[in-house]
Amino acid sequence: MSHNSFGHLFRVTTFGESHGPALGCVVDGCPPNIPLTEADIQGDLDRRKPGSSKFVTQRKEPDRVKILSGVFQDERMPEQVTTGTPIALMIENVDQRSKDYGDIRDKFRPGHADYTYFAKYGVRDYKGSGRASARETAARVAAGAVAKKVLNHLYGDVSIRGAMIQMGTQKIDRARFDWAEVANNPFFCPDAAAIDPWTEYLEGVRKAGSSCGAIIEIVAEGIPAGLGAPVYGKLDADLASAMMSINAVKAVEIGDGFATAAMSGEENADEMRAGPDGKPVFLANHAGGIIGGISTGQPVVLRFAVKPTSSILTPRKTIDVHGQETEVMTKGRHDPCVGIRAVPVGEAMMAIVLADHALRHRGQVG
Amino acid sequence: MSHNSFGHLFRVTTFGESHGPALGCVVDGCPPNIPLTEADIQGDLDRRKPGSSKFVTQRKEPDRVKILSGVFQDERMPEQVTTGTPIALMIENVDQRSKDYGDIRDKFRPGHADYTYFAKYGVRDYKGSGRASARETAARVAAGAVAKKVLNHLYGDVSIRGAMIQMGTQKIDRARFDWAEVANNPFFCPDAAAIDPWTEYLEGVRKAGSSCGAIIEIVAEGIPAGLGAPVYGKLDADLASAMMSINAVKAVEIGDGFATAAMSGEENADEMRAGPDGKPVFLANHAGGIIGGISTGQPVVLRFAVKPTSSILTPRKTIDVHGQETEVMTKGRHDPCVGIRAVPVGEAMMAIVLADHALRHRGQVG
Amino acid sequence: MSHNSFGHLFRVTTFGESHGPALGCVVDGCPPNIPLTEADIQGDLDRRKPGSSKFVTQRKEPDRVKILSGVFQDERMPEQVTTGTPIALMIENVDQRSKDYGDIRDKFRPGHADYTYFAKYGVRDYKGSGRASARETAARVAAGAVAKKVLNHLYGDVSIRGAMIQMGTQKIDRARFDWAEVANNPFFCPDAAAIDPWTEYLEGVRKAGSSCGAIIEIVAEGIPAGLGAPVYGKLDADLASAMMSINAVKAVEIGDGFATAAMSGEENADEMRAGPDGKPVFLANHAGGIIGGISTGQPVVLRFAVKPTSSILTPRKTIDVHGQETEVMTKGRHDPCVGIRAVPVGEAMMAIVLADHALRHRGQVG
Amino acid sequence: MSHNSFGHLFRVTTFGESHGPALGCVVDGCPPNIPLTEADIQGDLDRRKPGSSKFVTQRKEPDRVKILSGVFQDERMPEQVTTGTPIALMIENVDQRSKDYGDIRDKFRPGHADYTYFAKYGVRDYKGSGRASARETAARVAAGAVAKKVLNHLYGDVSIRGAMIQMGTQKIDRARFDWAEVANNPFFCPDAAAIDPWTEYLEGVRKAGSSCGAIIEIVAEGIPAGLGAPVYGKLDADLASAMMSINAVKAVEIGDGFATAAMSGEENADEMRAGPDGKPVFLANHAGGIIGGISTGQPVVLRFAVKPTSSILTPRKTIDVHGQETEVMTKGRHDPCVGIRAVPVGEAMMAIVLADHALRHRGQVG
Repeated sequence: MSHNSFGHLFRVTTFGESHGPALGCVVDGCPPNIPLTEADIQGDLDRRKPGSSKFVTQRKEPDRVKILSGVFQDERMPEQVTTGTPIALMIENVDQRSKDYGDIRDKFRPGHADYTYFAKYGVRDYKGSGRASARETAARVAAGAVAKKVLNHLYGDVSIRGAMIQMGTQKIDRARFDWAEVANNPFFCPDAAAIDPWTEYLEGVRKAGSSCGAIIEIVAEGIPAGLGAPVYGKLDADLASAMMSINAVKAVEIGDGFATAAMSGEENADEMRAGPDGKPVFLANHAGGIIGGISTGQPVVLRFAVKPTSSILTPRKTIDVHGQETEVMTKGRHDPCVGIRAVPVGEAMMAIVLADHALRHRGQVG
Repeated sequence: MSHNSFGHLFRVTTFGESHGPALGCVVDGCPPNIPLTEADIQGDLDRRKPGSSKFVTQRKEPDRVKILSGVFQDERMPEQVTTGTPIALMIENVDQRSKDYGDIRDKFRPGHADYTYFAKYGVRDYKGSGRASARETAARVAAGAVAKKVLNHLYGDVSIRGAMIQMGTQKIDRARFDWAEVANNPFFCPDAAAIDPWTEYLEGVRKAGSSCGAIIEIVAEGIPAGLGAPVYGKLDADLASAMMSINAVKAVEIGDGFATAAMSGEENADEMRAGPDGKPVFLANHAGGIIGGISTGQPVVLRFAVKPTSSILTPRKTIDVHGQETEVMTKGRHDPCVGIRAVPVGEAMMAIVLADHALRHRGQVG
Repeated sequence: MSHNSFGHLFRVTTFGESHGPALGCVVDGCPPNIPLTEADIQGDLDRRKPGSSKFVTQRKEPDRVKILSGVFQDERMPEQVTTGTPIALMIENVDQRSKDYGDIRDKFRPGHADYTYFAKYGVRDYKGSGRASARETAARVAAGAVAKKVLNHLYGDVSIRGAMIQMGTQKIDRARFDWAEVANNPFFCPDAAAIDPWTEYLEGVRKAGSSCGAIIEIVAEGIPAGLGAPVYGKLDADLASAMMSINAVKAVEIGDGFATAAMSGEENADEMRAGPDGKPVFLANHAGGIIGGISTGQPVVLRFAVKPTSSILTPRKTIDVHGQETEVMTKGRHDPCVGIRAVPVGEAMMAIVLADHALRHRGQVG
Repeated sequence: MSHNSFGHLFRVTTFGESHGPALGCVVDGCPPNIPLTEADIQGDLDRRKPGSSKFVTQRKEPDRVKILSGVFQDERMPEQVTTGTPIALMIENVDQRSKDYGDIRDKFRPGHADYTYFAKYGVRDYKGSGRASARETAARVAAGAVAKKVLNHLYGDVSIRGAMIQMGTQKIDRARFDWAEVANNPFFCPDAAAIDPWTEYLEGVRKAGSSCGAIIEIVAEGIPAGLGAPVYGKLDADLASAMMSINAVKAVEIGDGFATAAMSGEENADEMRAGPDGKPVFLANHAGGIIGGISTGQPVVLRFAVKPTSSILTPRKTIDVHGQETEVMTKGRHDPCVGIRAVPVGEAMMAIVLADHALRHRGQVG
């Protein structure tokens, strides 16, 4: 139950602060004999890393991952594979920009975890938000890359993809949803027609020193029926926890989610017809691939909301560590829409939950 | 990580099927010396129990709880108290109506967990949905009553209240939100003016043999700042998991939730002024009382969506256990809006999560 | 990590006090489709139950187990099987003899957990030692019976057997070790020639109102190589924890245990020759079937020491709950050698650990 | 439950192989505001490190620890303190001597984990025994240093000390036991008169290319009554697991351990007299400071046996990875008595268990 670990059989423990020497994770419980190299992980990290467009923080971090343990190769086994022992992954911080932290050292920025960390621990690493920084999510993405290898090892061709479907007030037109578009724009947006207006919108937000929120959708395909468990080990319960644990996330829904409240039982329950191998073909997927906490074999579909970045250029009312009223304004590098970089993070968390449940299911049922 | 346990230091393990001899739970880790009787628990169970109005299942279950262990009293200590050892709570099933299960034995009802349990385990207790029945939530409510005692023991006057704010297509007017109304109607609805239209609406749903979903709001007051932990032990991550683990729940949001996506950083981040004892007074609570995964000291606010009951009187397309196409229709007792009885369940899960985090926080920080 | 749970994938949570209405356990994570009836469990319970000879407590407890959940049968599946959901087992207490507890209510009996429970919790169920009573082990034996079914389901013919190899000062002659003798005497002693002297010895202890300790050996055969995991999930680490958690146990050793300290590397390391299927045949089993925390495929062998029963008829110096010096003497029913009834408990704990590791291994490696 | 984690609220996850780039650990759940520097940790590491005498492996490893996260200091808080977030500790491997691994790559060395790792995972990092190397224990010692800081922070002056009381066939004279001697000889031996004969003895073992086992005693003083929990979270159960998880350990006993089997109830149960503050003064400590799984306030005393190093210079019968019979002999650096370096490791594991239980106790009871 440690505070900084996630998962059970496939278990990820992360560490590191924004301005410390390094961050990383230990992935424990990975099955052996799965090919794994640093390059397998680096690709995902590159999708999340800062500085890739003007719409994300300009901090310069190469986010180079180093595998410290848990893999093996020799001349007889030239392809490096996992050994079943813990895989430690480390990413060194290189751009901890030296600056005057005076203002945020003493003042609690509204919306940030400044006050709550201080209230809890009585001490606070304020440099770049310390442990509360979104830099922690780099370790999740690295672990998620390992999880994807596990899923493909177990089930063949598993696809886990994410897209931003709403940025601030701007929504996509679902009729134009195209996964192929996601890689073509800096927003992970699946609607080609939205790119221009989104660009203009976010440019306006950025120039105003303001920020906006986002809604992200993650879809996993190729997952068999049977993953998950009653009643507190439900697949959707673990997915909800996983997504809600991402920085700035305030809401999670599975399948039709909140919209099911206004639906009738007839509309909502996905009917079945006979498919190959005696398995059902569902006539809809309002359930988002999970019923009774167990996967149905349909795509697993979820969405989560990311609140607007709390770092903004407008002075805000607050108090300081001495309890005195004051104002605070965030200077320096930040993401006008932190939801953008949450897309690969959401994919990673989906992969980690599914890999864990895949192993748990195999443990109990075979 | 057992599938049927929830929490860490305050840990609840539930057991039991809809038509077995009994269901119940073991509450482990409860602090000692807290007064606890069966009457303390029974009140909450009565709010959840079936048969209390025509809008919930007509199954006749008194839901009498029996404490099997973990409490003590004698002539010198006439008030029964917890001892720190596991508290086992048992509720016997008395109305397992004898009937012909033939139809649901062989057919997978759409929206129910029939197919997924079968796909996972290869065997299925189809009687009253077995383990997937909402009857399991009686054990949660019993455990939640213990959790509330813990919270009040630790923090004095903690209030945890739930209300249904949307039933099917019907929404409350938030301007009329009044907690005092919740106990006055069969819907746990906080809007007195909504009761008549809601009654008419649900009566229509019920007579049509249909069902509808719901949105429930749960609010905890009196919780200090500092509960929760980075980064996978976040308070909101555990709340999301807790709520999503309730039967038929498809979505969870904290504070302003999905609405934050369209907000600006200026609107969303709750400003602070100086309050008593050097603590902040927040000028708003868009965060729902949690920032960075840690409680702020404001009310903890969440909402969750319950999908429409999958048991409906309309024939639905499905397949049977042999993979053959067929139709199925649910006969017998059911809830037209299972969201109603989810209100006390949501309160219980809120209490369990908060009690667990209260002990975890005390363990680490003192 | 709950205090009263053991195991991970095969997880047992026990509850109940000596003089409460019932004790029992919840077994979570059991694989589905394993035949299981109350009779499967009752046999093991009968071997542990009180009153079976004059050398164990005369408390009259039938120890009838009742399965409350987690199994299923119907006319089409006449053999009752596990369903994969939690199996709750309950044993009602029937002989909570009404008596005057005055003396032990106020005084801390040396060797008993009276003082430590009081120091920890500030409240203490002194009736029959409450939660610290060896009655709790009935729940372990019940859970162990389920674990044995799991092991046989997975691996075919697994044998888990225990024997008392030392009672007080009396040791067996290992040259006469015969498993077949264990069922023929009230001591679970494997040495037929020891029965008469042991009987005389223990009769002397009993008549003197004294007590003695014991050493128990447990052997599991039919366990494949590969169970266990580096480095804190070692099979022997979990076995050590399991045995040390049994009431009154003070020592545990695997294979040659403490004797290895005086051995040379040549003596101690078990050499290998080629066996069938490319697997090794070991030329000795000093390792007790576990190397590097992982099973070798040889019999898993361990021993544990049980201290003498602390309930004795001699007055002993102690203090009372007010910190005053006094004397205390235990009256009433007790076991002159509580180690006797620890034999089936040790077997049960061995089975639980192995079943858990069997599922964990399958989860990670397949 | 991850395989490579230990503890619950104070939780240690280790990683790394003998010949990989680095090993280390993540310590999660440490209370905040405890002063902690690398120097605090280095001292303990130096006591364990290789190459410190001719009786331990000649591998040259400086074992320099680097703190990667979880601490903070600035100009206003010049003493570096823990922040409550995960503390990652890293030790780089520098002397992975390049050599021909051919022999051990293909052959299973008796007594080593070669065969069991291969049987479990199907792949094996044979370089320096990979994950099964005693190098992993450096990470434990580092984590133990943090645990000691926690204990001293909570309880004031806690002392945790270890000594080797038997090396091979050589035993100390307990009448001469003197903690002050432990630091004066390369064996951590508390008996000054034993040093010369032990030196001669081990020199003989070393020159013969053989090895011997050892018995280590660890004593913790300054621990209050009340740590531990019924019934699977017993303090002694967790200590047994902790010690048995150390490489080459085959036995653990608490207090009088195996000797209690031959004791009477009168001899074994520690009597009490009134001490200050209403607490008892015990007249003996046969219990080793733990009764009913809970600390009594006396010194916590345990012993464990370390088997002889399996690396010896004598050819031994074995099989290879192809199942063919062969012989194997260990060349190169090794410890003639690996028990020597187990002394600081045992101290570290004692500290980790106690720190975890201290936080768990505070969580439940306050």
